[in-house]
Amino acid sequence: MTALPHEENDESSVLAANTAFYEALESLTLAQMDSLWLHEEWVKCLHPGWDLLVGWEEIRRSWKQIFQSTVRMLVAVTRASAYVSGDTAWVSCLANITYAGRENFSTALVEATNIFVRRQGQWLMVHHHTTALPHQGPTGESTTVQ
Amino acid sequence: MTALPHEENDESSVLAANTAFYEALESLTLAQMDSLWLHEEWVKCLHPGWDLLVGWEEIRRSWKQIFQSTVRMLVAVTRASAYVSGDTAWVSCLANITYAGRENFSTALVEATNIFVRRQGQWLMVHHHTTALPHQGPTGESTTVQ
Repeated sequence: MTALPHEENDESSVLAANTAFYEALESLTLAQMDSLWLHEEWVKCLHPGWDLLVGWEEIRRSWKQIFQSTVRMLVAVTRASAYVSGDTAWVSCLANITYAGRENFSTALVEATNIFVRRQGQWLMVHHHTTALPHQGPTGESTTVQ
Repeated sequence: MTALPHEENDESSVLAANTAFYEALESLTLAQMDSLWLHEEWVKCLHPGWDLLVGWEEIRRSWKQIFQSTVRMLVAVTRASAYVSGDTAWVSCLANITYAGRENFSTALVEATNIFVRRQGQWLMVHHHTTALPHQGPTGESTTVQ
């Protein structure tokens, strides 16, 4: 899976943290998202179509805004690969996101790089970088929110 | 600068590796790009507008293709932040790229996450994730190549 020195268990626990992140996204629950990130001023987040957000406060506000404008979000994650080195890890994955807002509906295929650091045994997200890929599906709507 | 355990020198050396990467891009020289990447089958690269490339062979082919179709490339990198943890590091930065091909000319503002691992004292790129941001400049051309 990876050429970096690591424990197999570490890889599984990082992938579990990655899964928990997308579950938090589907849950539309800010408290769930809160528990997954490192709350420091240097963490970074690039939602598709947004500018880079820096610092947990700004990132938390963005999730609040996204969750408030979303009625339902479904996420199917594929080809997730985890790379672990000590207490730092990253996951590369593809997220197929279906979004329903109050007045619109859309799907997006999103390439993601998620970086985590381990604190007190828990993997916390410190960097979430997404790119919406050119649309290949049948949906005509182009709005993407995550 | 960062809350991760690190040596200040490490941070500088990672930023230098990041600078060398963009210099290689400007140089349009494959040998220069060769020397900056880890040549393994799991490294990943997402050029703007492309699908994810996996493995050094595929990534090398993409650079060859980009360099062959490019007459000139100028890159201005801003707000580069490096985070180091042991022999793994990542850089978040914004690259303002001016591209001249044989028949077209374009500019792109590209958000990048570049991940490096240290091998025999050298930081080597293992993950290059880019997102072209919505165009904010005066250029009307929308083609992006890096």
